[in-house]
Amino acid sequence: MSETIKSTNITWHHAHVTKQDREQQNGHRSVIVWFTGLSGSGKSTVANALDAELFQRGVRSFVLDGDNIRHGLNKNVGFSPADREENIRRIGEVAKLFTEAGMIAMTAFISPYRADRDKVRALVAEGDFVEVYVRCGVDACESRDTKGLYKKARAGEIKEFTGISAPYEEPLNPELILDTDKETLEESCEKVLRYLLEKSVLTK
Amino acid sequence: MSETIKSTNITWHHAHVTKQDREQQNGHRSVIVWFTGLSGSGKSTVANALDAELFQRGVRSFVLDGDNIRHGLNKNVGFSPADREENIRRIGEVAKLFTEAGMIAMTAFISPYRADRDKVRALVAEGDFVEVYVRCGVDACESRDTKGLYKKARAGEIKEFTGISAPYEEPLNPELILDTDKETLEESCEKVLRYLLEKSVLTK
Repeated sequence: MSETIKSTNITWHHAHVTKQDREQQNGHRSVIVWFTGLSGSGKSTVANALDAELFQRGVRSFVLDGDNIRHGLNKNVGFSPADREENIRRIGEVAKLFTEAGMIAMTAFISPYRADRDKVRALVAEGDFVEVYVRCGVDACESRDTKGLYKKARAGEIKEFTGISAPYEEPLNPELILDTDKETLEESCEKVLRYLLEKSVLTK
Repeated sequence: MSETIKSTNITWHHAHVTKQDREQQNGHRSVIVWFTGLSGSGKSTVANALDAELFQRGVRSFVLDGDNIRHGLNKNVGFSPADREENIRRIGEVAKLFTEAGMIAMTAFISPYRADRDKVRALVAEGDFVEVYVRCGVDACESRDTKGLYKKARAGEIKEFTGISAPYEEPLNPELILDTDKETLEESCEKVLRYLLEKSVLTK
């Protein structure tokens, strides 16, 4: 907050509101919670359940997932390795903007390449990128197949499908692992919530 | 808020928090305030002064401008007509995401093409896109030349510079016009603030 301009009733500032200003006002830190894992592993379900709970607590959070990204910002991006890289790059940049706006940005994308995830991590300060590996065996994901995508991938109707015909690179040192084929949704959610409290992202 | 999952101490929801949920909690509507005009017309200055005032009022707002977009999300986009279109398309999609997160998204980009701005308008509900034409003569912008860009454009060092060697298409029916070469910064800011109050985007 620097130079000020006087007015009849409002003082207008030549200033930028910073991430720190917003965090202080909000009463919580703003970080990226990056969920990564196979299709059907439960990334979006966990992220949205957490978002609803954070909303109840008055915490500013938002979920970026296929529903609001693939048909919008990234509708001109495909599934080749180069396109997947650009897909994740853009999502990382948008998530960063959300943290600058004082929010906890949760992202729910397969994001199969380690290098792409690490580039997002490098965009923000240490501690502001929370990588959550949603670890669920391909068999369990395939047996759920909520979107019918595995069936299409097995039939060859979808090329380059992660876990079937395209690689998934597991995180080497994720901040958290959720074993969604062994634990309940509430257990997974509570792991993340507990982590955010332990790291003082949230204070209550 | 639909199906709920019981837990020891928290009820986890299979739910999406909606734009309306967030608007209700925030006590204000979430809209896009789209500033358009020549380089040096004052878009970013007005947007950031408003942002600081809204922050003081506890309103959730954020500014997207060259500083946080051109070196990040859109660093792989240039200044050709096709690239300018993609630049504005992405910014529009991100602004929309911010409104879905309950925020007032202010954007400060030249955005010279009418068709591109109208495409952003079409992304959101009627009344949720507030086009603010920051009308400032090219002479006034050039005499300020805060970034030294007009000098470079005149010297031919910058190609396709809006107002010099690339077109600017004035809005036909903007929600607001700010004559920043005739009015003070505070007058411009107060016009926008008054508009947001009149349209009940803000209630206080």
